[in-house]
Amino acid sequence: MVENGVLDIMYLNKNNRSPALSSSDKEKKNFDNFKISFTDDYPKKNAEILSGQYGINLLLVGLSLMLALSYQGSAVKEEHILSFLISLMILQITWMLWYIIRKDRQKCFVSEKDSDAGTSWLRGGLTLLALISLIMDAFRIGYYVGYKTCLSPAVGVYPVIHAVHTISQVHFLWFHVNDVIKTFETFERFGVIHAVFTNLLLWCNGVISEAEHLLDTHKRRLLDLGYTNVTVGEKEPHCNCTTNICSIFSHSLYYLYPFNIEYHIFVSVVLFVMWKNIGRIIEYQRHQKVVMRTKGLFAGPILGLIALASTITVLVVYILQVGDSVETRESAVTMFYCYGIVMLLFMCLAGSVGLLIFRSDNLPLDYSKNPSRKLDADLLFGTAIGSWLMSWCSILAVISATTRPVYGWINFMYSLLIIIEKYIQNLFIIESLHRKEETNERDEVETIPEIYSVSAGSSLSLASSYNGIINRAFENQDKVCVSLETDQEDNNQVYSHSGSLPEGSISLPTRSSAELSKRRRVLKNIAVFLFLCNISFWILPAFGCRPQFDNGMEEKTFGYTIWTTIVNVAMPLNLFYRMHSVASLFEVFRKV
Amino acid sequence: MVENGVLDIMYLNKNNRSPALSSSDKEKKNFDNFKISFTDDYPKKNAEILSGQYGINLLLVGLSLMLALSYQGSAVKEEHILSFLISLMILQITWMLWYIIRKDRQKCFVSEKDSDAGTSWLRGGLTLLALISLIMDAFRIGYYVGYKTCLSPAVGVYPVIHAVHTISQVHFLWFHVNDVIKTFETFERFGVIHAVFTNLLLWCNGVISEAEHLLDTHKRRLLDLGYTNVTVGEKEPHCNCTTNICSIFSHSLYYLYPFNIEYHIFVSVVLFVMWKNIGRIIEYQRHQKVVMRTKGLFAGPILGLIALASTITVLVVYILQVGDSVETRESAVTMFYCYGIVMLLFMCLAGSVGLLIFRSDNLPLDYSKNPSRKLDADLLFGTAIGSWLMSWCSILAVISATTRPVYGWINFMYSLLIIIEKYIQNLFIIESLHRKEETNERDEVETIPEIYSVSAGSSLSLASSYNGIINRAFENQDKVCVSLETDQEDNNQVYSHSGSLPEGSISLPTRSSAELSKRRRVLKNIAVFLFLCNISFWILPAFGCRPQFDNGMEEKTFGYTIWTTIVNVAMPLNLFYRMHSVASLFEVFRKV
Repeated sequence: MVENGVLDIMYLNKNNRSPALSSSDKEKKNFDNFKISFTDDYPKKNAEILSGQYGINLLLVGLSLMLALSYQGSAVKEEHILSFLISLMILQITWMLWYIIRKDRQKCFVSEKDSDAGTSWLRGGLTLLALISLIMDAFRIGYYVGYKTCLSPAVGVYPVIHAVHTISQVHFLWFHVNDVIKTFETFERFGVIHAVFTNLLLWCNGVISEAEHLLDTHKRRLLDLGYTNVTVGEKEPHCNCTTNICSIFSHSLYYLYPFNIEYHIFVSVVLFVMWKNIGRIIEYQRHQKVVMRTKGLFAGPILGLIALASTITVLVVYILQVGDSVETRESAVTMFYCYGIVMLLFMCLAGSVGLLIFRSDNLPLDYSKNPSRKLDADLLFGTAIGSWLMSWCSILAVISATTRPVYGWINFMYSLLIIIEKYIQNLFIIESLHRKEETNERDEVETIPEIYSVSAGSSLSLASSYNGIINRAFENQDKVCVSLETDQEDNNQVYSHSGSLPEGSISLPTRSSAELSKRRRVLKNIAVFLFLCNISFWILPAFGCRPQFDNGMEEKTFGYTIWTTIVNVAMPLNLFYRMHSVASLFEVFRKV
Repeated sequence: MVENGVLDIMYLNKNNRSPALSSSDKEKKNFDNFKISFTDDYPKKNAEILSGQYGINLLLVGLSLMLALSYQGSAVKEEHILSFLISLMILQITWMLWYIIRKDRQKCFVSEKDSDAGTSWLRGGLTLLALISLIMDAFRIGYYVGYKTCLSPAVGVYPVIHAVHTISQVHFLWFHVNDVIKTFETFERFGVIHAVFTNLLLWCNGVISEAEHLLDTHKRRLLDLGYTNVTVGEKEPHCNCTTNICSIFSHSLYYLYPFNIEYHIFVSVVLFVMWKNIGRIIEYQRHQKVVMRTKGLFAGPILGLIALASTITVLVVYILQVGDSVETRESAVTMFYCYGIVMLLFMCLAGSVGLLIFRSDNLPLDYSKNPSRKLDADLLFGTAIGSWLMSWCSILAVISATTRPVYGWINFMYSLLIIIEKYIQNLFIIESLHRKEETNERDEVETIPEIYSVSAGSSLSLASSYNGIINRAFENQDKVCVSLETDQEDNNQVYSHSGSLPEGSISLPTRSSAELSKRRRVLKNIAVFLFLCNISFWILPAFGCRPQFDNGMEEKTFGYTIWTTIVNVAMPLNLFYRMHSVASLFEVFRKV
């Protein structure tokens, strides 16, 4: 009995890394005999550090090149960075090719998949972004052909390699991104982390090009408005265009940049999850078919579409007015802030209602291991910092200003609301993502008696009277792999649900399904509304609507150099935050 | 039987958060009745995000104030930042007081402690640093008294509050830092995170003051050497000192700054671990008495002390020579790099030998949950980035330079070795920290038959033939809390050790204890050597030996502004990296 107990422990625990020999493990054993020596018995933690440090250093080499380029007197030129990026991309393509060929040869073995990583809608979105990137590459090639005589060959080779890289990477993402790699682990770690950081560097490169372009536009506007102490950098090559359409190419490029930038950062996030999954033993996963329910969707989409439409109007008016004269510029900035305040108030309200529904619902969260979800939460938290920093700087600028323009305090309100809105939205999204398991279950087992805590009091009494755990039957009996889902971290909240329990064995209040679906409808509407609002707040700065430069208040407090540095570092984070929220809110919408 | 099995699972798993009602949990239940409503049933994940976001925003407010101060034309003055810091410190003192009083009232209940957090030697070290901070406060008060007539009162109030803050914080650290908070969780989270970020802001403030001072020194040197296009900021107040010893105070301050800076960053790390521990259910911990063994220590300490002595010589010579003339400056920089290369070569060698010993040992790592160790590893990895960035920039500067001074390629070698050394050292420290459980055990049970894998082959056969787990008897039987130590993540490596096993039941090669202690001796010597070397590499930049400014190569490639920004951001990280390595290596030395 005691020995059985000991064996039980071993099968059940080990934090997802059960040493029990499942069938897939046995396959793995067969492979181990062919392992090359340096991957043999290398501890996982060290392999992670080893490859992680390699990746970080790759990024730093690229960053140091980019920093050197931003200084006029440096010997580092654009072609050096491009050559570096080309070699990284070629290395990544080689690795992906090797990986795909090797996988194809081993088709007889069913490889494990992490169904949470790289969901199909995410891959679909990435494919769309990749297509726009390909158009961009075509434009770049066209631009190079026009200026061939005075441009470095690297400028021509780069878009060709980038196109090959994009196509092969999308293929890789579709078929292999949720693989759980179990062979050649140490080597594969290097391959995947190389891919992650190559994409991150391509993102950095895009971000810097876009920031330079926007700063140039800003300076040109200042010149038009009569400021004389501004110098605009000359970016055109020193020869004539041979095809007459070079300027069309170079101007169109900047409308495609935002999509290319988001493409690379999203790919690196998805690949990072793949890296975290290497060597992991996947818990038993239900392959549930999520049916997209759109019943009861009304207020959310309508309000969201109104928001989106007004955003596009605001964007067009802003761009047209801001360069005209000092007066129209002031009115454009004021309009932007007023519009922003209204939007943000609605978003705060929506998020708060969502959180209140969760509080009244008071169900425990699902803490099962899920690297993809953990990364989502960390990224929401981490990338919000960029926008928070800008907002606090704006608030400080308004408070410390000696003379304030008309939009002074409106800017203050807007910045404060930005902070509060991100605060609430992060709470809402992270809690929603941790609830998905519960909400789905509810739906599936509506005919089976269900037990859940309703209020704090009954939750406590439930916990002390019945220490229930979730004990699901296996769908897949040939895998000797027992898992405990919902690694409950709240001590007092024990959520019990067991299909095998005799009906009515524990009497607790059950809530009517009508009320449930009403709540769910509200949550769905909120998710859709926030989804569209976040798209709006991505579009504005991505396409050049940056009142942070045009209002002139922050520049007075922080100086031109410091303020442009802050905005250029924080803005890409903010853009990524919005796009990432969009992806997360889509997930929330799908799962509620 | 099946139902028993289910109950077993519940007691055993849950990722350290067993819902089983241990005696301490029951005490907790009694408290729950007195909980105020907003802490009730608030999911842990949300409480973390809620308080974490508050802390980040606190930091950002402080950062925006500091950024505004660094611009000359800004309305933000030093007294504003000091007032902000004073109010944060008062808030923290109030919270700590409230916490201590409440704890004292509840003395009847034994609170849980995390013995891994804030070890006594770490607290001792912090007390020493705190004493130096108090001396600094005294100097600051003296300085204020001298210039009273023309300084803002905030400059006088700040050191007084800082002294009170330091004393109360050290008291708090000694008695409460390894508490595992279980009541008023949401509220306490805010208290602890407030303390973390208050210390982080005090660190930022110290770092900025020190960076300004070092830049001023650098500029003064350039002026002395005949460069005319340099302006040195005026920092002295515009009135006469009434006590005649003001300059002594202000000069002495800068020798104490490095200690004060390290004090604040270490406190915030220790408090962060406390924050992570809130609401955690601690696994069963053996309270083993670690006996510091110094037998066989010879080569490590001797070599380390030689390194330390030569470091101090190099520091003195460098400081004396670098401001003299262009020739002595060149020779000082060359001397520094040569010395650095020798040191780093030895450090790389020591780390590699350590790693080779681990590889030949090939024992699995201990993956039990330990927030303090996880943070250690993350910080080593994260803070190394600062120094890596500087090194890559130096390498780029050497490669792209058109004219190179004598120390050009020596700088290249030095920077490359810095990168390699940190790479190896991180691997060594992180693997050592994850091994500690195993090495201690070995020592304790030398009389009991012991089984462990020797080579890859036998490890595999061991895994397949005997799926052992560690099954220790409880020392503390009144706690109904079963834990599984060594959450083994390596799938193939199953380490078995059971005291209750009949002797000779499994025949495996046992290694002689002589060989073991020989290996351990080597590891101990390596740890001591690296410990002293890291102190050396902390002393040099902390006390003004920064060839990054004096060699002039990087400035040519990146420009003055970009390069000083890079150094000012990366150097504090590098200093913290060295200090943190020192603490980690001491831990390694103690546990080997």
